[in-house]
Amino acid sequence: MIKAGIIGSTGYAGAEIARLLLKHRDVEIKWLVSRSFAGQNYEDIFRNLFELIEKECTDINIADMAEGVDVIFTATPQGFLQGSLTAGLLEKCRFVDMSADYRIKDVSVYEKWYGMEHHSPELLSEAVYGLTEVNREQIKKTRLLANPGCFTTCSILTAYPLMKEHMIEKDSLVINALSGVSGAGRGAKAANLFCEVNESAKAYGVTSHRHTPEIEEQLGYSYGEKLTVQFTPHLVPMNRGILATETAKLCKEHSYEEVRQVYDRYYKNERFIRVLKKDMCPETRFVEGSNYVDIGFKIDERTGNIILMGALDNLEKGAASQAVQNFNVMFGFDESEGIDDIPMVP
Amino acid sequence: MIKAGIIGSTGYAGAEIARLLLKHRDVEIKWLVSRSFAGQNYEDIFRNLFELIEKECTDINIADMAEGVDVIFTATPQGFLQGSLTAGLLEKCRFVDMSADYRIKDVSVYEKWYGMEHHSPELLSEAVYGLTEVNREQIKKTRLLANPGCFTTCSILTAYPLMKEHMIEKDSLVINALSGVSGAGRGAKAANLFCEVNESAKAYGVTSHRHTPEIEEQLGYSYGEKLTVQFTPHLVPMNRGILATETAKLCKEHSYEEVRQVYDRYYKNERFIRVLKKDMCPETRFVEGSNYVDIGFKIDERTGNIILMGALDNLEKGAASQAVQNFNVMFGFDESEGIDDIPMVP
Amino acid sequence: MIKAGIIGSTGYAGAEIARLLLKHRDVEIKWLVSRSFAGQNYEDIFRNLFELIEKECTDINIADMAEGVDVIFTATPQGFLQGSLTAGLLEKCRFVDMSADYRIKDVSVYEKWYGMEHHSPELLSEAVYGLTEVNREQIKKTRLLANPGCFTTCSILTAYPLMKEHMIEKDSLVINALSGVSGAGRGAKAANLFCEVNESAKAYGVTSHRHTPEIEEQLGYSYGEKLTVQFTPHLVPMNRGILATETAKLCKEHSYEEVRQVYDRYYKNERFIRVLKKDMCPETRFVEGSNYVDIGFKIDERTGNIILMGALDNLEKGAASQAVQNFNVMFGFDESEGIDDIPMVP
Amino acid sequence: MIKAGIIGSTGYAGAEIARLLLKHRDVEIKWLVSRSFAGQNYEDIFRNLFELIEKECTDINIADMAEGVDVIFTATPQGFLQGSLTAGLLEKCRFVDMSADYRIKDVSVYEKWYGMEHHSPELLSEAVYGLTEVNREQIKKTRLLANPGCFTTCSILTAYPLMKEHMIEKDSLVINALSGVSGAGRGAKAANLFCEVNESAKAYGVTSHRHTPEIEEQLGYSYGEKLTVQFTPHLVPMNRGILATETAKLCKEHSYEEVRQVYDRYYKNERFIRVLKKDMCPETRFVEGSNYVDIGFKIDERTGNIILMGALDNLEKGAASQAVQNFNVMFGFDESEGIDDIPMVP
Repeated sequence: MIKAGIIGSTGYAGAEIARLLLKHRDVEIKWLVSRSFAGQNYEDIFRNLFELIEKECTDINIADMAEGVDVIFTATPQGFLQGSLTAGLLEKCRFVDMSADYRIKDVSVYEKWYGMEHHSPELLSEAVYGLTEVNREQIKKTRLLANPGCFTTCSILTAYPLMKEHMIEKDSLVINALSGVSGAGRGAKAANLFCEVNESAKAYGVTSHRHTPEIEEQLGYSYGEKLTVQFTPHLVPMNRGILATETAKLCKEHSYEEVRQVYDRYYKNERFIRVLKKDMCPETRFVEGSNYVDIGFKIDERTGNIILMGALDNLEKGAASQAVQNFNVMFGFDESEGIDDIPMVP
Repeated sequence: MIKAGIIGSTGYAGAEIARLLLKHRDVEIKWLVSRSFAGQNYEDIFRNLFELIEKECTDINIADMAEGVDVIFTATPQGFLQGSLTAGLLEKCRFVDMSADYRIKDVSVYEKWYGMEHHSPELLSEAVYGLTEVNREQIKKTRLLANPGCFTTCSILTAYPLMKEHMIEKDSLVINALSGVSGAGRGAKAANLFCEVNESAKAYGVTSHRHTPEIEEQLGYSYGEKLTVQFTPHLVPMNRGILATETAKLCKEHSYEEVRQVYDRYYKNERFIRVLKKDMCPETRFVEGSNYVDIGFKIDERTGNIILMGALDNLEKGAASQAVQNFNVMFGFDESEGIDDIPMVP
Repeated sequence: MIKAGIIGSTGYAGAEIARLLLKHRDVEIKWLVSRSFAGQNYEDIFRNLFELIEKECTDINIADMAEGVDVIFTATPQGFLQGSLTAGLLEKCRFVDMSADYRIKDVSVYEKWYGMEHHSPELLSEAVYGLTEVNREQIKKTRLLANPGCFTTCSILTAYPLMKEHMIEKDSLVINALSGVSGAGRGAKAANLFCEVNESAKAYGVTSHRHTPEIEEQLGYSYGEKLTVQFTPHLVPMNRGILATETAKLCKEHSYEEVRQVYDRYYKNERFIRVLKKDMCPETRFVEGSNYVDIGFKIDERTGNIILMGALDNLEKGAASQAVQNFNVMFGFDESEGIDDIPMVP
Repeated sequence: MIKAGIIGSTGYAGAEIARLLLKHRDVEIKWLVSRSFAGQNYEDIFRNLFELIEKECTDINIADMAEGVDVIFTATPQGFLQGSLTAGLLEKCRFVDMSADYRIKDVSVYEKWYGMEHHSPELLSEAVYGLTEVNREQIKKTRLLANPGCFTTCSILTAYPLMKEHMIEKDSLVINALSGVSGAGRGAKAANLFCEVNESAKAYGVTSHRHTPEIEEQLGYSYGEKLTVQFTPHLVPMNRGILATETAKLCKEHSYEEVRQVYDRYYKNERFIRVLKKDMCPETRFVEGSNYVDIGFKIDERTGNIILMGALDNLEKGAASQAVQNFNVMFGFDESEGIDDIPMVP
């Protein structure tokens, strides 16, 4: 039985990790850390877990905590883990980090986009970027897992095979992505009140969203060269879901079948990536609550572009269930243990 | 391995039964019947199940079908099963019926409220009303299970202990219930279009909703006498959920603890009924996607009334998961097999 | 041209008053007070009013302000106005107060339900409760208008004629009301985040909601005796709207026509109260954005109860547009000036 | 007093025209045509208009109808008007058509994208494309107004000044647009049920949406050459609203101020086009219920792209209120008569 702790357990991603670990046959949750709710019953805050998790939230003491568990999940703000983690702590237990702290290999890029100093850059080389389907072999061996962002997971997995195969022009990718509101977190901000968000849509973080360099770095690895993408996120009134619509210039004419074969080559054996049938467009409701990514595409012969579409649940494959998937790989469990929920409709 | 068939598999309740049975370790789905979608791939209609159920919908032939399976779930319109079922069919396989056809013991009441003739009244005595927590022992032995309605399950379980113990005045119950839109089904009706329902609330079926006699009959059994309730359902803009708020006159003054003890006596050992802590009001989001019923109550000393509140998911405990719960009891499986999903937030 | 100021102009009700006054032919908005947003452009906060109101929010200085305007609208928290208002200020300008400070005539009831001392009880006798259709004559003459709450306006107007005519039993009224989320205000509370409220329904303030004594006091005036009601509010996921479903015991049997005649007698000439046709149930979407109250009712011969239903927009007839309606009456303008918006569907 | 008739008055756009004309000081609605609802009271269908429009829906007889009115608004399916209209009818009254029948000057393009024959191509030369701010002078003189589509109005007005000034590369425009559900109409289609649309997002009509040739034709006129755009529409769960996010390659480096000056030159005096302040992104809620288009933009120096964003209400500036705006221009009324509603928040 693996012992796990969660820091940042009262945010949406942290709470979802707790719910998933509860279902995991080989994990015992030892403690749930929350600064703001320390001393309160977890089940009183997340009443979906009423009678299921009967524990108090505890305040943070990362050194002590690392002693008693095998793995720590950190669903914490940017900067927390890179400011706390040491080589010594990594000797004691493994970390699955939901923040961006160890996602970007280039420290200067991190420091520029996140506007803060990185306090443990020496650990970056050990960190593995946890896009499971892409980096599975490295994930098996790491002690420090940098779990990808929600927009990034969706954007990258949708374009990855075509980028890797140089089928689309390197700098032509225009990514317009839609996100449900849970991506904005559980903090009490007026901008995320029901009445501020409901019945409306907007773009935000235009030209400046922090998932941009993460997408660019990873797709650059796939392509084999540095590249840029034009990434524009939008907020739409739903709880969960990411939909990425990616427009790219095809390097040359391709038939549906040719593109399809490439996707199948990469993803046919991936349980959690479903390439849809011809002419089907992914919808976020069909992946909600699950670890699935649904992908579709359409070639536009008029313009020479290909439109790629990917959908996932931002709190699952975009956060918590991918974290557990990576944890499963790191600890040698069946990759789908605890995260085999089937989306429900409606 | 139990073989199961589902008639009416492309409605919301039927599809939810399919999804739950897919997770059930002892069930194999043999066929999925849908008149409207016969010949189409089930995964093309319910793309949440893409790559998970690879079967075509079939047209209906109940006699042949009963030969090849152990149980048939009918998620069909009122009148279908009572017009098709025979003693002979019941010899071949067991039925779990989601419609009202065998819920009401008094044929004249059925015929009056549903405006149709009952064609198999001789089977009514064998039918068991599938409120699992109330009728568990009879359910074990039946071949014909009448699965309760969504409003009724919520309304009855919330009031049952107090009614049974004669703590509230017999005819004083005023039930105001809210329902999500999935309760209205998946038929193409203009009244259920997004833009007709979103951002609005209304009462409907006032004084005439068909769940009224079902609530009255069952609560009458609990009380030991016939009784009436004032039941007013409302439609609110959410996919799933029933919230029943029940106002009743207390027969005499009671403390919180006295009422609490009664609830605990009935429900403490029930896995799927959660009586909340003092002053907590149930919220539908905390039971969504699960078989739970959450119950709370509040005594008003000013008025001598008690306010009871119950919440469930209309497609789960109000339909599909309770059907599987009953199926589990009928066939001797662990009662929670296939229906142990934990609600997720948000 | 009447000069008006708004204190609390950056809450939902305050902003709605601003929007309505902007359309009013005889009003000029002199200043918009907001402590939290002082110094910011109003159009930057409420971008629906971009290019329409080009003013900065100012900090509060009620004495100076009263000098320069004819009327002050206060959309402020409970306690603000009763702690600031004096007979001297009332000499300078008239007040339309959206809070509960002067709604309840019995100071002890106010102090008990609101948990605060009342600092200007001497002004209570002058205050008029601004249910326009009920108290129009008194409103014409007052300098201090206590604008009713949203639940109360809906609950009272729906039951008023039958209560006044003693057609329903005095203490039998069970009011279950639904509210959109804007009723909870624009403050940054986690409980009102989109993801905490969306896709869920709950009762709240059960047995303790502060609109209870207001409803009881006013309906008691109508009936001619003190009475109690059982009032249970609910939160449902929509921006705007109040729906009140009121169950009452009829004193004796009545036909539809008899009850209808009573409603017509009271409301036929009221522009903003629409008694619907037989069997029509009000829906909040049909009054959204307008000053209308839609009312329907249904007699249940089985139980001897009558079900009354009323719908209004909590920010309009339940707050801002009724405030402007009262202002129009106070200053002798056409009662519908500035508030004649027609609800739009969807 | 202008006499007007509406054909297709029970769809969302038709009903919105009725509501707007009701507020118009110089218009009298003579008849409301609806095949499906002929003989029914209009106020029973659109109960927002209860007591405000007391007319029965009539069946269609376009020849007779044209005799008695000055203008006919057709909110009808594609193909209706081009199959009914004749030069003779145009002698009798003027037409404002909401369909695409006369929007596209090139008949072969119309026939290809709409899959139907055009029966009155001889009238195309007389038809004026009703983008008011672009074609105002021609609109003044026309008898046949082709009112633009919702996506097209938003997409074109957002890009128009930069396209006209050749500031962006001709074929580089990637338009990703989001639409509320009312754009799908009021027909009883299962795909538009609340539970099929709520809590989900999807792209649709990818590479094949019929607004594509309309955008291309009009932007081609602006640019002075034929061009192509990559247009991908999405459905998001809200009643109303279009948000267009347009990514284009700048022909050369431009500062914010340079681009801003161009927008100001074209739109500064346009009442209904609001170019937002620097760094502000339009949100659909801030234009809902109004004739406004809100526009913002952001230059990305990293990529050399400019991101343009436009928001409007698909039923207003994207349909009904623009139709009335065009009607006002055609008949010489103040352009804002009847359509000066201010968006309300929330």
